[in-house]
Amino acid sequence: MDYTTMCPKYEAGIEILGKRWTGLLIRVLLGGPKRFRDIKEIVPEMSDKMLTERLKELEAAGIVVRNVYPETPVRVEYELTPKGMDLKNVVESIQAWSEKWI
Amino acid sequence: MDYTTMCPKYEAGIEILGKRWTGLLIRVLLGGPKRFRDIKEIVPEMSDKMLTERLKELEAAGIVVRNVYPETPVRVEYELTPKGMDLKNVVESIQAWSEKWI
Repeated sequence: MDYTTMCPKYEAGIEILGKRWTGLLIRVLLGGPKRFRDIKEIVPEMSDKMLTERLKELEAAGIVVRNVYPETPVRVEYELTPKGMDLKNVVESIQAWSEKWI
Repeated sequence: MDYTTMCPKYEAGIEILGKRWTGLLIRVLLGGPKRFRDIKEIVPEMSDKMLTERLKELEAAGIVVRNVYPETPVRVEYELTPKGMDLKNVVESIQAWSEKWI
């Protein structure tokens, strides 16, 4: 890899992935589709406002999809798209590094 | 991997790596030791103040070491430690994902 110049694609990737909470949120969703409250249970320190904001951003980036099931009451689940699922390698490399060095 | 609970080590890793500019900075230093001005040349959008702050944080985290060479004028270089070099996998997985999806 050429490290002597910055790669615009890498820069754009970091812009998405490097946001506060995003790395945690993607790890949670790698465990399968989740309702808002399921996510909150795993990351309770994250405020409702912040979680809503991040989910919207990840939807806009094509990383998360919001599924609405017309049941009573309506069930809403958040799920990784194939683009999102493909972040598994990133999450696993961060996990491996953290376990080794932290 | 267990995705049903959050891992404190992963959380701590994300806390370091997920900070604005850090992902770019580590990619630059994977190219070898650099002077302050060399880094600025590769990431010109980053302010001097922010670069100084991030380098200090990465030093404190044991990811970057600051080498001072007693020449005239004094030469100062920033270099990844083994802990920092080990982030190569993380940077490469983000690069691969970004090239595929962005």
